Amino acid sequence: MSDEDPIQHLTQLLARLPGVGQRTAQRLAFHLLRSEPGYAAALGEAIARFHERVLACARCGNLSASDPCGICSDPRRAGDILCVVASVADLYAIERSSVHRGRYHVLPTLLAPLEGVGPEDLPLAPLVDRVRREGTREVILATPPTVEGEATALYVSQALRPEGTRVTRIASGIQYGGDLEYADPVTLGRALDGRRDV
Amino acid sequence: MSDEDPIQHLTQLLARLPGVGQRTAQRLAFHLLRSEPGYAAALGEAIARFHERVLACARCGNLSASDPCGICSDPRRAGDILCVVASVADLYAIERSSVHRGRYHVLPTLLAPLEGVGPEDLPLAPLVDRVRREGTREVILATPPTVEGEATALYVSQALRPEGTRVTRIASGIQYGGDLEYADPVTLGRALDGRRDV
Repeated sequence: MSDEDPIQHLTQLLARLPGVGQRTAQRLAFHLLRSEPGYAAALGEAIARFHERVLACARCGNLSASDPCGICSDPRRAGDILCVVASVADLYAIERSSVHRGRYHVLPTLLAPLEGVGPEDLPLAPLVDRVRREGTREVILATPPTVEGEATALYVSQALRPEGTRVTRIASGIQYGGDLEYADPVTLGRALDGRRDV
Repeated sequence: MSDEDPIQHLTQLLARLPGVGQRTAQRLAFHLLRSEPGYAAALGEAIARFHERVLACARCGNLSASDPCGICSDPRRAGDILCVVASVADLYAIERSSVHRGRYHVLPTLLAPLEGVGPEDLPLAPLVDRVRREGTREVILATPPTVEGEATALYVSQALRPEGTRVTRIASGIQYGGDLEYADPVTLGRALDGRRDV
């Protein structure tokens, strides 16, 4: 079968998606052939125009259809509490929990010295400026509890110290519904360190 | 976040693919955002125009960029050996084995009386006409070794009996590299029934 074959062509493109191998890609292609053409047309159009439709919010770095994003322009969100996250996917995860009523600041990257991402690659001036300009009362550091996330949280907290703003870190411990027996030692240690009076 | 959000929109569409849940769909969407825009443009275009680009071969039912398909128009393929398959995906699988040097006939469906697909839904006239017209020497029944596939193979072989053509059925038994200990009893029985002299 020639390389110009549309099934082979689409299979090759789909197989470049993460977690999609050749077999899954071919299965998806045949699934699309069997589905109503309107679905493939809508999906294809959404993917082809995805980059041009998604705008980065100049204020917080969130990605959405508008700049400023819906969260930054929502007057019901507390403007003086900023949640610092490592990615828009993490922002979405926090939104799903419906716990955070403030706004966000999406970092362009995490510190990862071993991969060559040092402090100079993580410009914090926009965050510091924003905290100063908006009179932020609290900055919640919601970077992940990993080596990179912890290093980044420490670095951000030091950069914000001169502003006198309250800086907090999300809790790390046993996950809800989790099993102590199977928790790793670091998580158990964090759970004990972070104990609170009841 | 509104329904007009392009990330949510694409996530919903991707989540309709088989084996793709909400989380995977969102991960794929963010992956596309991080990839070069040219890839998303190419993938989207390939999906959106997939149905119009894929043609069914009027002769064998194969799906490709041309009608007749590359296999039917390839003079090096034996025109007098037809392999009857249940789907284009099965045709692809046989092509990967590089063992079949003849042509194909893709059935529109398998018999599935329990699901309401009876003989009247499986018109065999095109296959019988083709065997008569092309002077087919052998018809290999490569429908899957399932209840539906076996019933269909039996039905097709009966329809071809008046033509006097040789009709064969692919072997069923232990898969290559498979373990007898873990093979199901039906497969083991078929492996024994299908034993050959060595």
